[in-house]
Amino acid sequence: MIKKLVLHPDRLFSSDENIRNVARVLYQKVKDLPIISPHGHTDPSWFSQNTAFENATELLIKPDHYVFRMLYSQGIALEDLGISTTENTEVETDSRKIWHILAKNYYLYRGTPSRMWLDTVFFEVFNFEVVLSEETADHYYDTINAALATDAFKPRALFDRFKIECLSTTESPLNDLAEHKAINDSDWNGRVISGYRPDPVVDPEYEGFVSAVKHFGEITDEDTSTFSGYLSAHRKRRTYFKAAGVTSTDHGHPTAQTAYLVKAEIEALYAIVISGKASPEQAELFRAHMLTEMAAMSIEDGLVMQIHPGVYRNHNQGVFKQFGRDKGADIPLQTSFVEQLKPLLDKYGTNPELTLILFTLDETAYSRELAPLAGHYPCLRLGPPWWFHDSPEGMRRFRQQTTETAGFYNTVGFNDDTRAFLSIPARHDVARRMDCNWLAELVCDHRLELDEAEELAVELAYTLAKKAYKL
Amino acid sequence: MIKKLVLHPDRLFSSDENIRNVARVLYQKVKDLPIISPHGHTDPSWFSQNTAFENATELLIKPDHYVFRMLYSQGIALEDLGISTTENTEVETDSRKIWHILAKNYYLYRGTPSRMWLDTVFFEVFNFEVVLSEETADHYYDTINAALATDAFKPRALFDRFKIECLSTTESPLNDLAEHKAINDSDWNGRVISGYRPDPVVDPEYEGFVSAVKHFGEITDEDTSTFSGYLSAHRKRRTYFKAAGVTSTDHGHPTAQTAYLVKAEIEALYAIVISGKASPEQAELFRAHMLTEMAAMSIEDGLVMQIHPGVYRNHNQGVFKQFGRDKGADIPLQTSFVEQLKPLLDKYGTNPELTLILFTLDETAYSRELAPLAGHYPCLRLGPPWWFHDSPEGMRRFRQQTTETAGFYNTVGFNDDTRAFLSIPARHDVARRMDCNWLAELVCDHRLELDEAEELAVELAYTLAKKAYKL
Amino acid sequence: MIKKLVLHPDRLFSSDENIRNVARVLYQKVKDLPIISPHGHTDPSWFSQNTAFENATELLIKPDHYVFRMLYSQGIALEDLGISTTENTEVETDSRKIWHILAKNYYLYRGTPSRMWLDTVFFEVFNFEVVLSEETADHYYDTINAALATDAFKPRALFDRFKIECLSTTESPLNDLAEHKAINDSDWNGRVISGYRPDPVVDPEYEGFVSAVKHFGEITDEDTSTFSGYLSAHRKRRTYFKAAGVTSTDHGHPTAQTAYLVKAEIEALYAIVISGKASPEQAELFRAHMLTEMAAMSIEDGLVMQIHPGVYRNHNQGVFKQFGRDKGADIPLQTSFVEQLKPLLDKYGTNPELTLILFTLDETAYSRELAPLAGHYPCLRLGPPWWFHDSPEGMRRFRQQTTETAGFYNTVGFNDDTRAFLSIPARHDVARRMDCNWLAELVCDHRLELDEAEELAVELAYTLAKKAYKL
Repeated sequence: MIKKLVLHPDRLFSSDENIRNVARVLYQKVKDLPIISPHGHTDPSWFSQNTAFENATELLIKPDHYVFRMLYSQGIALEDLGISTTENTEVETDSRKIWHILAKNYYLYRGTPSRMWLDTVFFEVFNFEVVLSEETADHYYDTINAALATDAFKPRALFDRFKIECLSTTESPLNDLAEHKAINDSDWNGRVISGYRPDPVVDPEYEGFVSAVKHFGEITDEDTSTFSGYLSAHRKRRTYFKAAGVTSTDHGHPTAQTAYLVKAEIEALYAIVISGKASPEQAELFRAHMLTEMAAMSIEDGLVMQIHPGVYRNHNQGVFKQFGRDKGADIPLQTSFVEQLKPLLDKYGTNPELTLILFTLDETAYSRELAPLAGHYPCLRLGPPWWFHDSPEGMRRFRQQTTETAGFYNTVGFNDDTRAFLSIPARHDVARRMDCNWLAELVCDHRLELDEAEELAVELAYTLAKKAYKL
Repeated sequence: MIKKLVLHPDRLFSSDENIRNVARVLYQKVKDLPIISPHGHTDPSWFSQNTAFENATELLIKPDHYVFRMLYSQGIALEDLGISTTENTEVETDSRKIWHILAKNYYLYRGTPSRMWLDTVFFEVFNFEVVLSEETADHYYDTINAALATDAFKPRALFDRFKIECLSTTESPLNDLAEHKAINDSDWNGRVISGYRPDPVVDPEYEGFVSAVKHFGEITDEDTSTFSGYLSAHRKRRTYFKAAGVTSTDHGHPTAQTAYLVKAEIEALYAIVISGKASPEQAELFRAHMLTEMAAMSIEDGLVMQIHPGVYRNHNQGVFKQFGRDKGADIPLQTSFVEQLKPLLDKYGTNPELTLILFTLDETAYSRELAPLAGHYPCLRLGPPWWFHDSPEGMRRFRQQTTETAGFYNTVGFNDDTRAFLSIPARHDVARRMDCNWLAELVCDHRLELDEAEELAVELAYTLAKKAYKL
Repeated sequence: MIKKLVLHPDRLFSSDENIRNVARVLYQKVKDLPIISPHGHTDPSWFSQNTAFENATELLIKPDHYVFRMLYSQGIALEDLGISTTENTEVETDSRKIWHILAKNYYLYRGTPSRMWLDTVFFEVFNFEVVLSEETADHYYDTINAALATDAFKPRALFDRFKIECLSTTESPLNDLAEHKAINDSDWNGRVISGYRPDPVVDPEYEGFVSAVKHFGEITDEDTSTFSGYLSAHRKRRTYFKAAGVTSTDHGHPTAQTAYLVKAEIEALYAIVISGKASPEQAELFRAHMLTEMAAMSIEDGLVMQIHPGVYRNHNQGVFKQFGRDKGADIPLQTSFVEQLKPLLDKYGTNPELTLILFTLDETAYSRELAPLAGHYPCLRLGPPWWFHDSPEGMRRFRQQTTETAGFYNTVGFNDDTRAFLSIPARHDVARRMDCNWLAELVCDHRLELDEAEELAVELAYTLAKKAYKL
């Protein structure tokens, strides 16, 4: 049965008429605001080269681990979805056939944010009027591919159409930011900046760490066989990134542990880690110390610091061996912040130059640790609900559990953190709707006046992100 | 004051008119579906012998630790409730007097699921029209007892009246399933199967473990003094259970820890555990290894595997000494799954023959660990909210916290896990109402279309459990 | 822009008309009930001396760490708020100027309970009709100060106006309760009692512990160089407190750990702790043992025992050094109760004379541990949502997560735990509104009858606290 695709104008607003009416009023104030996307993982070459996207499957299935993990969880082999293997063994290459798998199993996404994002993309970007299903799979596949071949669907055109004011990608210090420079040098006005993500040269457990640190020395002309040379390499590279428009750093550690070792200790530890022989405890201690060093450098150069901790990466051994990283098998871990952040905060927590934005996948920390910390320390801000919690219920819980202790002004608005470029407006729209609905609830049980809610709606949708990330 | 007993037809539905109207429509689709009860602890002899239940107190108070724990928590002695002691010291034997204690204290259950289940039993099964209270205690006691003496209230008649399509009990491998065979051999058509629950021969800390393992060897004609003989005993007994209609196993460990030891290590460990001298760490390691072995056997024989971890059993030392196990003193513990399940998943997590259903009493794992795991691994499914969370608010939180990441199709519908036979329809009804209400919420804020919700309501109430448990 | 200050009569009630109507009915039953405030930190000298409060800043900003922590978190220096330093270095002394800082930044409190409490104080106590802002700052400052100078705003007059039936402060055993005795001896009828809070002589990590224990011996005429003398000192001092009207003890430990050591062990440990050389582990073990001793004494003397665990005190090192304790830098920690409380419960958990009220800042323990424990052990009761969770959302989560397993009657009503005297009626009003709203929800989805909800509303607002604290 072919069903009409509907995006209801009141979607995500409460069915309670009082709340819905207020939410509508608030949403009108923010729905057309430009998008600030201060943290994500889109590919800068899309915007430097502005090549047309290949086809529906390459654009919407293969790069989106939210999408293919659900199919995999229900027994569909990653090979059948065309996910390439580390040894380049044979996988499905018929993109239309892969698209049909998604279409046939589209019911699996019921109730998930992926479903909402995809439907929004289908409706808003491609103007589909019917729901994706087996019957409509070819219609979808052909329509999307035809659209992608036109200029209006090239990356820069979509960026402009999406009203993105600033988009930040994330790069390793080893990256030369050539794509970003090409964008800057082009006649296109889109603002695409990077973020300094030093994990490959900070995490001794990162694949290729030892050689990465060597290479890090070469490109910065510093002697990274010594800790002081290594720190200088960071300083130089941060300056290089900053010169290319970067305003933030990002740190994706397994925990939020920080530390501060005295000179002799950190130098001895550094010698071990660059030998490639660090134990897991030593690796953890090195990462912990480096967060504090990064905070010191942020105070010097003004880059806003972000910590994204608490993920067990590549949990599925079989999938990791066969298909490599980022295949939907990253699983959150219990994450604590109170004792973990103390060494860094003892050293720099009262410095007015520092901004440190905290994220978590462990929602138990919201009310217990993160809101109390952010409601006290001037340097701390709470990042939006992240990853699995970038969802209506995730956003609801975030506001319910952080607002009363941290307030709104110790949060930093929304960021999408996505690789799926087309979903960016859909994701920001979900955040704007959920925040408007939350504000409407506060108005309707008289915890907030309407004019306050109107101001806050704009702050949450636009201003707070811009301020926090110095954009 | 005698009050009218009312079971409102809209109970548990939102008071929001939009949501309630949709919930009503959905509930009409599922309210009369047969009951699949794939996991519980009812007594199979009820159905093999079909003897009348004794009286209201023996049926509704003494076997129900939900009921007597609340009375105990408010200072009523277990002796006064007729709970028998391990040393057979004197306890109250006047069942009518015990029934009066419940009646007098019935207000204590306000807001609890026990209250809702009991009232449903009183209204639906016994047709009471007044609320239980001191004034109505005798009326209740006499009416219930009179009813129980009739054929219409014998176990098989109630089973049929409750429209139970399949009921699974849970037995130790040492059980010969004589009751189940008697049921099978009878002229009654009710389907009552067992579940393979090997804790008494898998958990070295279980009372009587050493002699149980010996006995396990005798009944299977295997040499359980060796680990390979012990594994063979499991294989044979699983086959025996399967032949009696069993489709699942169940494992009630203190944690979700799994492990996989090499041959020499597990043989050495086995020698220690069957000597009765295992340390707590060795006992934990043995249980952990055995979960992985059980997964291997499930791949062989197709039995669906369930893990129910994270309970501190018999926490109240005084009560345990005086009254023994299962006296309402089991308390949940923090429970993690990510690192704990990895050894098992590394070995068998991508095997398409495995189904592993996970339960928890630690709701913090829902959004952080369980939904991400089930939303990725093909073998994993999420069991319904369990035990203390088999309740309206518990069900609400389960759906709110798992749906967005795991979807609906990585869950397995409802199971009641109860010893209280009469409460089975009441419990399934609560689950059906809460799921319909949740789906109605998604329809009303436009996250789901009505026709999708109608399909899902049936899946959640009936089909998913049937499929997951291979019934 | 000057805005009208409105306290909506339906504030905190659901915007759903059905629920709101029931909530209104329930609230009418409780809104004027006297206030039982069985646990807090107000200053007894206010009531013994009955001196007029100094000015708006001294009354409403400086003693309220909820208020100044939010300003501090947004970069306003504590010096600029007139918070005095440990070394008495210069800080802002112009109270009007400090008041202007609050006024200018009043928007930061949007959505926080502080905002609601302050507005309630402004409206109800001082009759303001405009919202606090830069424009109205002087009007506020002058009006408040003028009022404070009058007899009607002296502490005793406010106490009477607030309809406080009983207020409990908290004092160290070293305190002679002179203020409380003066209150008792006065011609004023207000009931202001203390609570026995022995942390300074129980926690080896408390500043000045060693000399405090010596002093403890002196004032009790016991030899606190021996453990038995130390216990006798406690017994005497508890008797002294009890004679002054005290009905409860309170214990603010970093964890809920309890222990029970044999005589030789605890004597050896005691010798170490009073030498001032206890390791952190020894300090923890001593505190743990002492909780069990305190339970034993509670059984003897009938004092109700409270545990407030799980706070990392004075987390901000810089602030602690410069400004000292209690500066808004206390951060909650993960807190578990199941294994931690077992030693105490093994010893005294079934004793009918013991009442032990548990609090937590780790909401994850509500449904997992605290409700199951309180729903079983006769001695255990759940304290209300505490500190950061003394808020609308915090109260909502508490009831949602504890009611189904612990019921209502294993909870103890509300207590404000505040230093901010003027906020006491506002805080109790929030609790009454939120409880009425929760009961109204249960009525509206037919989990509770209206007459039951009416009874419960009174229990939660008044009776349960009075009973649990023996007031």
